[in-house]
Amino acid sequence: MKKLRNHPQLNQQENSPKAVNNETDLCSLTDLEFKRETAKILKELREDMNSNADSVRKELENIRRSQEKPENSFAAIQMELKAVKTRMNNAEEQISHVEYRMMEITQMGQQTENQMKKHESNKRDLWDNMKWANLCIIGIPEGEEKDNGIENIFEEINAGNFPNLKDTDFKIQESHRAPNKLNPNRPTLKHIIIKIAKVNNKERILNAARQKQNVTCKGTPIRLSAAFSTETLQARREWQALKGKNIQPRILYPARISFKTKGEIKIFSNKQKLKEYSNTKPILKEILKGLL
Amino acid sequence: MKKLRNHPQLNQQENSPKAVNNETDLCSLTDLEFKRETAKILKELREDMNSNADSVRKELENIRRSQEKPENSFAAIQMELKAVKTRMNNAEEQISHVEYRMMEITQMGQQTENQMKKHESNKRDLWDNMKWANLCIIGIPEGEEKDNGIENIFEEINAGNFPNLKDTDFKIQESHRAPNKLNPNRPTLKHIIIKIAKVNNKERILNAARQKQNVTCKGTPIRLSAAFSTETLQARREWQALKGKNIQPRILYPARISFKTKGEIKIFSNKQKLKEYSNTKPILKEILKGLL
Amino acid sequence: MKKLRNHPQLNQQENSPKAVNNETDLCSLTDLEFKRETAKILKELREDMNSNADSVRKELENIRRSQEKPENSFAAIQMELKAVKTRMNNAEEQISHVEYRMMEITQMGQQTENQMKKHESNKRDLWDNMKWANLCIIGIPEGEEKDNGIENIFEEINAGNFPNLKDTDFKIQESHRAPNKLNPNRPTLKHIIIKIAKVNNKERILNAARQKQNVTCKGTPIRLSAAFSTETLQARREWQALKGKNIQPRILYPARISFKTKGEIKIFSNKQKLKEYSNTKPILKEILKGLL
Repeated sequence: MKKLRNHPQLNQQENSPKAVNNETDLCSLTDLEFKRETAKILKELREDMNSNADSVRKELENIRRSQEKPENSFAAIQMELKAVKTRMNNAEEQISHVEYRMMEITQMGQQTENQMKKHESNKRDLWDNMKWANLCIIGIPEGEEKDNGIENIFEEINAGNFPNLKDTDFKIQESHRAPNKLNPNRPTLKHIIIKIAKVNNKERILNAARQKQNVTCKGTPIRLSAAFSTETLQARREWQALKGKNIQPRILYPARISFKTKGEIKIFSNKQKLKEYSNTKPILKEILKGLL
Repeated sequence: MKKLRNHPQLNQQENSPKAVNNETDLCSLTDLEFKRETAKILKELREDMNSNADSVRKELENIRRSQEKPENSFAAIQMELKAVKTRMNNAEEQISHVEYRMMEITQMGQQTENQMKKHESNKRDLWDNMKWANLCIIGIPEGEEKDNGIENIFEEINAGNFPNLKDTDFKIQESHRAPNKLNPNRPTLKHIIIKIAKVNNKERILNAARQKQNVTCKGTPIRLSAAFSTETLQARREWQALKGKNIQPRILYPARISFKTKGEIKIFSNKQKLKEYSNTKPILKEILKGLL
Repeated sequence: MKKLRNHPQLNQQENSPKAVNNETDLCSLTDLEFKRETAKILKELREDMNSNADSVRKELENIRRSQEKPENSFAAIQMELKAVKTRMNNAEEQISHVEYRMMEITQMGQQTENQMKKHESNKRDLWDNMKWANLCIIGIPEGEEKDNGIENIFEEINAGNFPNLKDTDFKIQESHRAPNKLNPNRPTLKHIIIKIAKVNNKERILNAARQKQNVTCKGTPIRLSAAFSTETLQARREWQALKGKNIQPRILYPARISFKTKGEIKIFSNKQKLKEYSNTKPILKEILKGLL
C-alpha cells in the first residue's frame, strides 16, 4: 500500500496546482513559446497516462495473482474437509456398530449373571443335599478322637444323653473333623461331622437334643446340629438375629423362617420376601426395624 | 459498483463526443482563443487524469483491504481444520482400541459361555449321580404318609406287587415328598422320593415294576420310576415323543435313546446327534419328520 | 490476464515514443498544422484516457465479482466445518460413553471369571465329596463282571489279597464300570467303581493294598485306588512327576503334596504355592527345576 501511495504518476495531486497554473499562463506566452510549452505538456500528459496505465496494469495483475491463491487454498481446504467428512462417516458407522455390539454383550452379560445366580443357588442345593444326612457335633476337644475314634465318641454321646435311642443302630457312613470354612482364621474348634446312613435317624437325634437342651460329653457341654452348605449356614445365622423379637420365629429346613402373626403361620425363604411382606404390616415392620 | 459507475471522471464516455467535437473545432478558433481553449483542455485532461488515478488508487486500496480478510479467514479455517483432524486421529485411535477390546471381550464371553455349558452339563451329572439311588413313587395321595410313614407305604407296595423281592432288605437312606420343581403351579401330587441304600436294589424294583406293568397301592394304580435331574427328566420327556413311531426306541440311563435300524443298534445321547445321523438316512428322516 | 495485456489503451508503451516525437515536432509546424495536430493529440489523449478508465472500471468490476465468490465459499466451508465439529463432539461423547461401558463390562467380566473359578473349584469339591466312598479297581478284564457280578469279584479280591479284612462286611452301595472320561480315545480298560457304605472301610482296603503292594485278581495284577474328580485326578498326576526326586513326597487327600525339608513337614495344595515357596529356597528350587 505504501508503495502505491508514493507512486509518482498515481499521486500527483500535490503537483497539479503548479501544472494547472502552467496551463493557465499559456495564453501569455509567445506563439513559439506556446507551441513548445503545449508540446511539452502534451508529452508529459501522454507519459503520465502511460505510466499510470502501466502502474494500474501491474497492480491489477498483482491482485489477480493474489486472487488465484485463495482459489487454490479453497480447493485444498475443500478436499481436506471432504476427507475429514469421509473419515467422520466411517467413524460414526464404527461407533454405531460398537454400540450395537456393546448392547449385545451387555445382554449376554446379564444372561451370564442370571445363570451365575442359578448356579450359586444350585450349588447351595447340591451341598445341602449332600450334607442332608450329616450331623454336626460342636465342642469336642480336638485330638480326643485320636484315642477313642469318632464313632466311639458318638456312641458315648448317645448313651449319655439320649437313653431313649439306645436301641437304635445308627449306621455311620463317614466321620471327620471339618475345617471351619466360613472363617479359617477364627480360633474355634473344628467340628466333628458324622454322616448317618439314615437321614431319619439324624433327625431323631437332633429332636432328642432339642428336647434335652443341655447335651454333654464327658461333662463338657457340647452342641449337636444339622450340617448345611456354607450359604445356607450364613442364611440361618442371619435369621438368628430375629430370635429375641416377640414373634417367636422358628427356622425351618434348610433356611426358611416361620412365625405366627394374627393367628396365621407365615413362612419366608429369604429376607427380601419377609421385607416385602412386612412393608404392608406396620406392626410387624416396627418389630423387625433395623433387622432386615 | 453503483458509486463507481456514477463517478464523473471514470464515466465520461457519454461526454466524450462533445469533448472530441470541441477539440476538432479548435482549428477554426483565433490564435488567442485556441491558446485559451487548449490551456483549458490541457488543464481538464490533467485534472481528470489525476482524479482517475485517485479513484483507481482508492478502489485498489479497497480491494487490497478486502483481500486481507480471506487471508485471515483462511488461516483460521486451516487451524480449525487441523484441530478437527487431530481430534479425528484421536477418535479413530480410540475406536480402534475399543474394537480390539470388544473382540477380546467377545472371545472371553464365548469362553464364559462354553464354561457355562460345561457347568450346566456338570450340574446335570451331579444331580443325576446324587439321585442315582433314588426311587420315585408317583400317585400316593398326599397325607397318607402322615399315618403310616413313607417306609411302611414302601414295604406295603413291595409286598403287594413284587412277591419275588419279599426276602430283600431294602435299606432306605432317606424318604420325602418332592416338590414338583418343573412346574410348581401344576396341581399334581408331589412324588414320594425314596433313597435306597443299594443302587442295585433300586434297579431290581424298577425291573420288577416294568414286568408287572400295573403296580398298585391299596387298589390305586401308582407308578415307580427312577429319579433324575430336572434336565435329564426334560430330555427323557422329549424322547417320549418318539415312542409311538415304528422304530421301537428304548430310553437308556440317563437320557439316551436306542433303537434298531437295519439290524444295528444305534444309541444317541441327544436330539442333535440323532438329527445329524438321520439326515443321511432318508427312511429314518421320514419317520422322525417333525419330531426333532 | 492475456486479454488485459493485449488491451490497446492500457498497453501503449511501445507506441509512446512515436507519440512523444510527434509532440516534439509540433514546434516546427505552421500555426494551422500545429492547431490541427494539437487538436488531434488532445482528442487522442481524451479518448485513450476514457478508454483506459473504462478498461480499469471493467477490470475492477471483474475483480469485485470474483471476490464475492470466496466470501460465499467461506460461508459454506465454515458451515460445513461447524457441522463436522458438531458431529465430532457427538462422536467423542459416544466414544467416551462406550469406553466407560467397556470398563464396566470388563469389570463384570473379571467378576464372572472369578465366580467361574470358584465354581470350578466347587465342582471339584462336590465330585471329590461324592466320590469319597468310591473305590476304584483297575485292571479287571472287561466283561468278567457279566458272569460273576462286580460284588463277587470284589469279594474274591478281598479274600485273595487281604486275609486280615475277611471278617469285615463291606456293604456296597453301588458298583459300575466307569467310562474313561479323561481321554475317551485311549484304549484302556474301563475301571470298576465300587461305592462302599462306610468311607472308613474304603480307607482300610486302600491301606491294606498299599502294604501288600502287589494285589492280584485270578493271578492278574490289579490296582486299587481312591476315586477322585477329574480335576483332582489331574492334579495328583502332576504331583507324580515329583515322585523320583529326593524329597520323598507324599500325596495327601485329595491332591496336596507333603514332604520333609530341614526336619519340617511342608504341605502344598497346588504347584503355584510350592513354586512361590521354593523361590525362597535355592536347594529346593534346584531339585524342583523344570518340574513346576
